[in-house]
Amino acid sequence: MKWALIGYGGMGHWHVSKLKTLPEIEIAGIYDILPEKRAQAEADGLHAYPTLEALLADPAVDFVTIATPNDFHKPIAIQAMAAGKHVISEKPVTLSSRDLQAMIDASRKYDRVFSVHQNRRWDEDFLVMKQIYNENMLGRVFNIESRVHGSRGVPGDWRNTWLQGGGMILDWGVHMLDQLLQLVDDDVISTFCTVSHVTNDEVDDGFKAIITFGSGLTAQVEVGTSNFINLPRWYMQGENGTAIINDWALNGEIVKVSDWEKRDAVPVVTAAGLTKTMAPRTEETIKRYPLPTVESDVRDYYRNFVKAIRGEEKQLVTHAQMMRVVKLMEACFKSAEENAVVHTRI
Amino acid sequence: MKWALIGYGGMGHWHVSKLKTLPEIEIAGIYDILPEKRAQAEADGLHAYPTLEALLADPAVDFVTIATPNDFHKPIAIQAMAAGKHVISEKPVTLSSRDLQAMIDASRKYDRVFSVHQNRRWDEDFLVMKQIYNENMLGRVFNIESRVHGSRGVPGDWRNTWLQGGGMILDWGVHMLDQLLQLVDDDVISTFCTVSHVTNDEVDDGFKAIITFGSGLTAQVEVGTSNFINLPRWYMQGENGTAIINDWALNGEIVKVSDWEKRDAVPVVTAAGLTKTMAPRTEETIKRYPLPTVESDVRDYYRNFVKAIRGEEKQLVTHAQMMRVVKLMEACFKSAEENAVVHTRI
Repeated sequence: MKWALIGYGGMGHWHVSKLKTLPEIEIAGIYDILPEKRAQAEADGLHAYPTLEALLADPAVDFVTIATPNDFHKPIAIQAMAAGKHVISEKPVTLSSRDLQAMIDASRKYDRVFSVHQNRRWDEDFLVMKQIYNENMLGRVFNIESRVHGSRGVPGDWRNTWLQGGGMILDWGVHMLDQLLQLVDDDVISTFCTVSHVTNDEVDDGFKAIITFGSGLTAQVEVGTSNFINLPRWYMQGENGTAIINDWALNGEIVKVSDWEKRDAVPVVTAAGLTKTMAPRTEETIKRYPLPTVESDVRDYYRNFVKAIRGEEKQLVTHAQMMRVVKLMEACFKSAEENAVVHTRI
Repeated sequence: MKWALIGYGGMGHWHVSKLKTLPEIEIAGIYDILPEKRAQAEADGLHAYPTLEALLADPAVDFVTIATPNDFHKPIAIQAMAAGKHVISEKPVTLSSRDLQAMIDASRKYDRVFSVHQNRRWDEDFLVMKQIYNENMLGRVFNIESRVHGSRGVPGDWRNTWLQGGGMILDWGVHMLDQLLQLVDDDVISTFCTVSHVTNDEVDDGFKAIITFGSGLTAQVEVGTSNFINLPRWYMQGENGTAIINDWALNGEIVKVSDWEKRDAVPVVTAAGLTKTMAPRTEETIKRYPLPTVESDVRDYYRNFVKAIRGEEKQLVTHAQMMRVVKLMEACFKSAEENAVVHTRI
């Protein structure tokens, strides 16, 4: 299968580096709107098409990845599918459910495989939490918290402009909301979201969403770019225990109750009072477990996409999943805009 | 000044132990509805009144503390003020703003000093955060998070019944919401709250409230009783830095940016991607500070109350403050009940 890349920026380089290691995919070339990026690609040993039209007119190209600023995903994806190419869009797939529907319609009309690069389904931190959840290690899970914290504000390029789909809901939120929907197999019944504008007035430079599922399970998904101390990446509560992943290096643990009956409370005494309710458990009534380990190869995304083109597998990131994530992001924007709970079922 | 106690339970013992060390207050005695608790008081060297009426009829008693189950605060407080006693109620002062207004009205009618025991205004963790906030150590603060986590469920007495004012909003929430209102000198404009029922169907065994102030500052106040791993007690974000208090022992720190300009981003590489936005800052662009230290003596609450009776000081915990906290708790209950943002200005 022959592949071409549209947009030779940071993620474009990442795609090329990954695909160079996959023997089943051949790199036909790249296109970038900037001449200097095309020159850089040539210097990197890649063929650079002079125009987008030239790339799309090359009959050797089977599929393309679109790694442009977010507002160009939709028009280029539709143009590429009309030209007979299968299409992977970088995330967010586009800026609204209406635009996504137009892309899905094009995929049907031109009978092309169309998906979004939800690479962070292969992140180990997510896969560890998914395993804990799926194997019911904590008993019934009632709360999941997923946080990504940085302290650099919004990157100073198109990502800080509203028209081009900047801001953190569309940047990191799209990954974390997709992970959440992959984790919890249930309908979202309500969404509450606040956004921050600490370093940027035009787009959100952080957000906090409280999402409620039909079962009553709640989730908190949060991104911050003015956090000089990070809160843990993942926190999950089940009836019998809690799991935590503190950081990208997967430091963390699982703590489960081992003896419900033992009344071992030693009150916490502070300057102004005491509390038995909040007394920490003694070690003899709990058991600590290391986090499970997982295997992950993000190139499975591309392996699957190629097999989906050949009709050998269903695509892993489906249109329905893409639509749910976009609708959940829309619910977040609407909730923050109106300072209200959005009761759309998603 | 002569003091008597109504309700010789856990907090009752705590009040006695504190007041024994204050020379300006003499302990007249206690009353408890349970004969065995009155016997225990006698064994502890305290006078036990045979009835509540006997206690209230003792002209030597200047003021009382009510440390009964929550639903008895209101009737006993009004009865005590009618009998000429100044009154301290344990928290929550009562179960609704309507009931509190009746208590405040009684305080005016009988010209008695009436307050609630908001002892946790003297907790060092709170005072440290207040100092950081007041001295503007982090620049403009835009987010404050206050969490108390335990793993013992709701205590198995009246605290798990709705009619008696059980549940965590009324138990720990009342402290944390009072602390928040003491910290941020601004109106609350909206409240969103979810509650948990992991170990108890009748009352909340935990809650999470997102509170927005007029300035745009947001706060998250959270109590959990099924948390086998605790998240940090306090987390505060300003434009230039973040402060954290991890635990009751006041472990924590302040991290502030020292060099905004230096572009030191080393991308975080995970199994499935890389991120520059979330790259941690290198040590050369931040500066770490220890938490400030504070002095605290919770007995200042009683010292002030006695002076307020004498007209020498204004009472520290005012009726207006008490009413705001009760109204904020009511907004939390209403928000959780309706799964909606409550826009009452408080």
